[in-house]
Amino acid sequence: MNELLIYIDYLGTLAFAISGVLIGTEKKFDLFGVLILGFVTAIGGSTLRDILIGVKPMGWMQNEVYFYLIFSAIPVVYFFKSTILKWRKGVFMFDTIGIGVFTIIGVQKTLSVGLSPLVAVLMGVVSAVFGGVLRDVLSNEIPLIFRKEIYAFACLVGAVTFLISDYFLWNELASVISITVVILVRISAILLKWELPFNVRSKN
Amino acid sequence: MNELLIYIDYLGTLAFAISGVLIGTEKKFDLFGVLILGFVTAIGGSTLRDILIGVKPMGWMQNEVYFYLIFSAIPVVYFFKSTILKWRKGVFMFDTIGIGVFTIIGVQKTLSVGLSPLVAVLMGVVSAVFGGVLRDVLSNEIPLIFRKEIYAFACLVGAVTFLISDYFLWNELASVISITVVILVRISAILLKWELPFNVRSKN
Amino acid sequence: MNELLIYIDYLGTLAFAISGVLIGTEKKFDLFGVLILGFVTAIGGSTLRDILIGVKPMGWMQNEVYFYLIFSAIPVVYFFKSTILKWRKGVFMFDTIGIGVFTIIGVQKTLSVGLSPLVAVLMGVVSAVFGGVLRDVLSNEIPLIFRKEIYAFACLVGAVTFLISDYFLWNELASVISITVVILVRISAILLKWELPFNVRSKN
Repeated sequence: MNELLIYIDYLGTLAFAISGVLIGTEKKFDLFGVLILGFVTAIGGSTLRDILIGVKPMGWMQNEVYFYLIFSAIPVVYFFKSTILKWRKGVFMFDTIGIGVFTIIGVQKTLSVGLSPLVAVLMGVVSAVFGGVLRDVLSNEIPLIFRKEIYAFACLVGAVTFLISDYFLWNELASVISITVVILVRISAILLKWELPFNVRSKN
Repeated sequence: MNELLIYIDYLGTLAFAISGVLIGTEKKFDLFGVLILGFVTAIGGSTLRDILIGVKPMGWMQNEVYFYLIFSAIPVVYFFKSTILKWRKGVFMFDTIGIGVFTIIGVQKTLSVGLSPLVAVLMGVVSAVFGGVLRDVLSNEIPLIFRKEIYAFACLVGAVTFLISDYFLWNELASVISITVVILVRISAILLKWELPFNVRSKN
Repeated sequence: MNELLIYIDYLGTLAFAISGVLIGTEKKFDLFGVLILGFVTAIGGSTLRDILIGVKPMGWMQNEVYFYLIFSAIPVVYFFKSTILKWRKGVFMFDTIGIGVFTIIGVQKTLSVGLSPLVAVLMGVVSAVFGGVLRDVLSNEIPLIFRKEIYAFACLVGAVTFLISDYFLWNELASVISITVVILVRISAILLKWELPFNVRSKN
C-alpha cells in the first residue's frame, strides 16, 4: 500500500468511525455502545474482506493508529456534534473519500493474494460498504445500502476503473483516478438524483 | 465432490439466489441491494461453514460459475416474477433440493478436514440454513428458520442419514439417499403440518 | 488454559446457553430455533474472537463437552423455567461469572498468538459480549449491550486488571483476581445504578 493510500485510509477510518458514533448517539447507546458502533463501522468492511480472502491478522490489529483514530471519534462527536451536523457536506465528503479508498485497497489486497479480478471487484465493494451494513444491522435498521443512494454502485464503477487503469498506468496514478471516479459517481448520483431500477419507493 | 453434486449445487445456488432476489424486490431494495441479498442468500451458508472450519479460499471464489448463476437470478426474477410466484411449488422444490445438497456437501467438507461427525452434522445444517438466516437479518426480519417450517430439522435428519449410509454404502449412493431424506422430511413436514414443540404461536 | 478456568468456562457456556434458550422461548421460536439461539449465544463470542485472531479450529469443535452443555440448556429451561425466572439472581450470577471467565480467556488466547495488549483487551471484551450481541441481532432486537448495564465496561476493567496483575503475579492468581473484578464492577454497577454518559434515555 503506497503512503498516500495509508493517509487517506486513516482519513476514511476516522470518517467511518464518526458516522458510527453519530448514529450510536442518535440511538441513545451508552458510551461503550457508541464506541463499539464506531469501531464496527470503521473496520467492519476491511475485516470481513480479510476473513473472506484469508488474510491474517487484520491490518488494524497490527497498527494502533486505527485504535486511536476510532477512539478520537468520541471526543470529536461530543464536542463538535452541532458543527458536524451543520457541516453535513464535510462529513459526506470524508465519507465519500473513505469509501473510495476502501474500495481501491480492497481490490489491491484481493489481487495480491492471487484471487481473480471478479472476486477483487466484489471484495472492493465489500470493504467499502460492509462497515455501514454492520452498523445498520446492529442498530436494528434495514441497511441503508439496500435502498438509498448509489453508494455500492459508485464503488463498483471505481473498482472496475482501477482494474483497467492499473493495467495501463502506474499503481499510484490508477489509485488516484479510481478514487476520484468513486467520488464523482457518488456526487453525480446525489446531485442528479440517480436511482437504480427496482426501486419503486415513490409509490408510498 | 462428485460431478452430480456439483450440478445440484449449481441448482441450489440459483434457487437460493432467486429467493434472496425475490425478497429484496418485495422489500423495495434497489438493483444493487437485491443483487447483494441474492448473493448473501446463495453463498452465506457455505461461506460461514468455510470460515468456521478454516477452509480457504471459499469455493465460490475459485469458480466463476457461482457469480454467473447469482447474477442471472436478477433477469430471471425481473422477467418471470409472476410465473415464479404462481409456480411456487417449483421454487419450493428447487429450494428444497438446494438445502439437501448444501447439507450433504457441508457434512463431507467438514469430515474431510478431520473434524468430528458431531461438528460435521452441525456444519451441514449451517451450510444449508445460514444463507437464509443472513437474508432475513439483512432484511430486518426475525429469521424464518426460528419459527416456521421444519427446515433445519430436515437438514439434521439428512446429515445423520448421510453419516450412517456413507459408512455402509458408496459415497454417491449415500449422497443421493440423504438428499432424498431431506426433501421427504421437509415435504412431509409441510403436508402433515408438523411442528416442533416450544412453538406456541397458536395463542396469538 | 489452567484447569480451574476450564471448569468455569463450562459454567459460563451453560449460563450463556440458558440465556439464549430463555429468550428463544420468549420469542416463541420452535425447538430448533431455541437450540440455535442457545448455541450462538454460548459460542458466538469465542468463535468471533478465534476468527479475528486467526486461531483454528475453534475450541468447541474439538471438545464435545460444549455441545452437551448447550444441548442440556433445553431440558434445563423446559423443566426449570419458573424456578430459573424466580431465581433471577442465580442466573445473573452464572452469567456474570461467565463473562468474567470469557474475558480472561479471550485476553490470554490473543496474547498467546503474539498480538498486542491493546488488541488482547478488545478481544477479551469481544469474547465476553459478542455472543449476547448475536443473540439480540438474531432475535431482531437492538443489542442490549448498547444501552443497558455496564456489561462491556466491566469486561474492559477486568481485561486491563488481568494484563497488569499477570505481569506481577502467577497466571492462576491473576485470572482469579481479574474475574473477581469483572463480577464486582458489574454488581456495583447494578446496585449503584451506574450509567455511562451519552445515555440520555431519562428524557423519554
